[in-house]
Amino acid sequence: MTTTTAAARAIRGTFFHTPEYGSFEMLEQALIELDGHGAIERITLPADPAYPERLRAAREANEREPGYLFELGEHEVVLPGFVDLHVHAPQWPQAGIALDEPLEVWLNERTFPLEARFGIPEGGDPTGGDFALPIYLDLVGTLLSRGTTTCVYFGSADRHSSEVLARACAQLNQRAVVGKVVMDDPAANPAFYRDASPEQALADTEDFIAAVEQHAARSAADDPRFPGLFPAVTPRFIPSCTETALRGLGEIAQAHDAYVQSHCDESQWQSGVARERFGKSDAEALADFGLLKRKAIMAHGTFLLDGEAEIFRATGAALAHCPISNAYFGNAVCPVRRIHDQGVTIGLGTDISGGFSPSLYDDIRMAVMASRILEDGVDARVPSEQRGAGEPSRISAVEALYLATKGGGEALDLPIGSFEAGRALDMQVIDLKRPFADLTGNGVFTSPADQLERILYLTTPENIRAVWVQGRQVFARG
Amino acid sequence: MTTTTAAARAIRGTFFHTPEYGSFEMLEQALIELDGHGAIERITLPADPAYPERLRAAREANEREPGYLFELGEHEVVLPGFVDLHVHAPQWPQAGIALDEPLEVWLNERTFPLEARFGIPEGGDPTGGDFALPIYLDLVGTLLSRGTTTCVYFGSADRHSSEVLARACAQLNQRAVVGKVVMDDPAANPAFYRDASPEQALADTEDFIAAVEQHAARSAADDPRFPGLFPAVTPRFIPSCTETALRGLGEIAQAHDAYVQSHCDESQWQSGVARERFGKSDAEALADFGLLKRKAIMAHGTFLLDGEAEIFRATGAALAHCPISNAYFGNAVCPVRRIHDQGVTIGLGTDISGGFSPSLYDDIRMAVMASRILEDGVDARVPSEQRGAGEPSRISAVEALYLATKGGGEALDLPIGSFEAGRALDMQVIDLKRPFADLTGNGVFTSPADQLERILYLTTPENIRAVWVQGRQVFARG
Ligand SMILES: [Zn+2]
Ligand SMILES: [Zn+2]
Repeated sequence: MTTTTAAARAIRGTFFHTPEYGSFEMLEQALIELDGHGAIERITLPADPAYPERLRAAREANEREPGYLFELGEHEVVLPGFVDLHVHAPQWPQAGIALDEPLEVWLNERTFPLEARFGIPEGGDPTGGDFALPIYLDLVGTLLSRGTTTCVYFGSADRHSSEVLARACAQLNQRAVVGKVVMDDPAANPAFYRDASPEQALADTEDFIAAVEQHAARSAADDPRFPGLFPAVTPRFIPSCTETALRGLGEIAQAHDAYVQSHCDESQWQSGVARERFGKSDAEALADFGLLKRKAIMAHGTFLLDGEAEIFRATGAALAHCPISNAYFGNAVCPVRRIHDQGVTIGLGTDISGGFSPSLYDDIRMAVMASRILEDGVDARVPSEQRGAGEPSRISAVEALYLATKGGGEALDLPIGSFEAGRALDMQVIDLKRPFADLTGNGVFTSPADQLERILYLTTPENIRAVWVQGRQVFARG
Repeated sequence: MTTTTAAARAIRGTFFHTPEYGSFEMLEQALIELDGHGAIERITLPADPAYPERLRAAREANEREPGYLFELGEHEVVLPGFVDLHVHAPQWPQAGIALDEPLEVWLNERTFPLEARFGIPEGGDPTGGDFALPIYLDLVGTLLSRGTTTCVYFGSADRHSSEVLARACAQLNQRAVVGKVVMDDPAANPAFYRDASPEQALADTEDFIAAVEQHAARSAADDPRFPGLFPAVTPRFIPSCTETALRGLGEIAQAHDAYVQSHCDESQWQSGVARERFGKSDAEALADFGLLKRKAIMAHGTFLLDGEAEIFRATGAALAHCPISNAYFGNAVCPVRRIHDQGVTIGLGTDISGGFSPSLYDDIRMAVMASRILEDGVDARVPSEQRGAGEPSRISAVEALYLATKGGGEALDLPIGSFEAGRALDMQVIDLKRPFADLTGNGVFTSPADQLERILYLTTPENIRAVWVQGRQVFARG
């Protein structure tokens, strides 16, 4: 049984992870030693002659300093913490509803009025305590409880309430990238919810970046295991921004070497807007504004054409694949395998609330299922050779796990997502033997591959007993 | 908080259900009174002038006889118990694994050897206590814990171990339809796992039916709330059976007015086998063997052509839609909306272990997502008007709920699946306010439609606090 630990210096147990795309590794009864900042210093396996001595030393240290060594329980195994590359935080109250609405209605009648409520009026509670803060704390806590240790968030268009979100992540010790959304085009956004002007949008973005960086610096100074908090330049997407704002945001992103997040080629409609406005593809337009670069994360890419994938590869920008959301709003299935083969960095996103689930387990499962439906096609009346994508498109559950962990780490250019020296110790502790949630398959098939696949497909929130970020337990169940 | 109750005579709370396909009803603070067999006698709503008096009487009765009235907690609401129309019980240890294998390998190298282990050898433990029984109890208990109150099971080809399964369902008070699988064609099945001959297959089926009916009759005599246990004639599918067996099973089904379960038009390959062997479609062949009729449940129907849907409609046979399984083995998306519009009775199935999940919540979600992908298509390089099915194909979450409840009841010709007088009281008690599993959306959107949709999309096992079958609590969490 997991016990609450402040911050261990060594962990012993069985770890599953995906250091390389396409395969996994099981570190059985490994001893992982951490530095004082919660990063992995050394991994020792039982086959190593030094193992007995190191384990003995860690246990002795634990006698002197309880909590030094964290040893997993008999039926517990560890997965890396998940990296969720795409969440709209103010849409959390809308998760799981309104999904039958057409995109127009969904945006204008449901989503925008909701996000607008996250604005903090002049003279209002700057902590967001009356509305935004409890919702953001519930969201961040829920994501942590599902194993998400790093998360990339769209806030709202309101700078102050987006700072409330950033502080909520820091408070609960989730590693986070947070943006104040820019949507300044009066022709594209309702009067009740948009930036006052391009100039104001850029100034608010600069102020937001400064405020978040300051909060992050203070937090890191106070706490050697602070997992990190980063501001992101966040144009909602090309259709909602003026050229002035897009160009200005690109300049800010370059000047600060800041994260960028936006949407690219999400749907049939969206993929055509840049072409109509600028005579180029969505990716070309984003790149020309300076918005595609290392540390830029673009949601979806469902309608990415081959030339656009090359722009992603060349600039180092990453895609956040959001397969659940795409089923509702994507108009097609994102060809993850092809785009990955083209050298583009890809991770996974829940896209709350275009996607209903706060759990990347659900997106791992849907990434696999959608990739198989893409390969095989949908309409049984069409001959099989014309039905699907006409190329191998399926990905495995283990490949999807890579996207949810190390792929996300690559997208963020952060040392996270796998158990390797130098990386942050972010992990979820999975109990394989909860009542009515058995992950051992009744002990019939016990190979590591079967065990991992069963975890990916059958884990329930109940099985996730504890979640650690940067070497510290930040969530424990029950 | 739910308390353990043996068997109530009245229940008060808020019930969501789908008496008609396509819409839902919320019975707010309704008083549901039951007869001595756990069936609904009367439903009284607060607007009814008789409500105060009936509630007072029930509360008084509860004083005299504790447990008479069950009143739901503040944050609890009720959904009908789910009806899972398609589960392969001996594949439970394989749930969530081997899904990347091609069908051939999956069947011959994984599934058949596993199912064969459920045979009880001459002189072996007739209770199955050494292998089958604990696995079946875990499966049935897990399904109950996820809200499945009625389930249709394929056992294995072994008659005795399929009886173990039937007794496990009766023991845990899950309403169940159970079959001993027939797969007798030596050309199609491995020597280690098939019926010895068509004659033996038919004799075993007759014996199995008699044994299950006897067990059911005894159980019902002992227990006025026994929810029902029914044998099913179970040819695995046309490709695995001889003509003699198929014809004989059809005759047995007609003679006993028994349930029938099999597979129809699951995949590209399967849909072609009957045509090659008999020169007709899968549905025509099944119908000609007498296997399509009222109380016949055929899994999948992904490749059902229009004429075949008409055979289903005319015979009263039902389809078990298994959207998760289809993503792996279906080669297309079952056009649920079209088939429903053609008058065919449809319910939902998990298809363990072709589908990984024991929860019909997951299949409700996937039924919606798959239907939307069918409508929109998959390959972004294809023009939108040629990409999808070219007709409205999407179904709503509320429509999928109907399939999982009342649709299943129609398929089985049993009075279950909704809260109406004369129907069994099968229900799941959902707590909307579990920590890190909030189903109220933080109280922002509270309409009944939003509340129900959020339950369908976001319920975790943790939210399902109790499950009742036939007016009796059979599962309670924590
Ligand atoms: Zn988004
Ligand atoms: Zn099946």
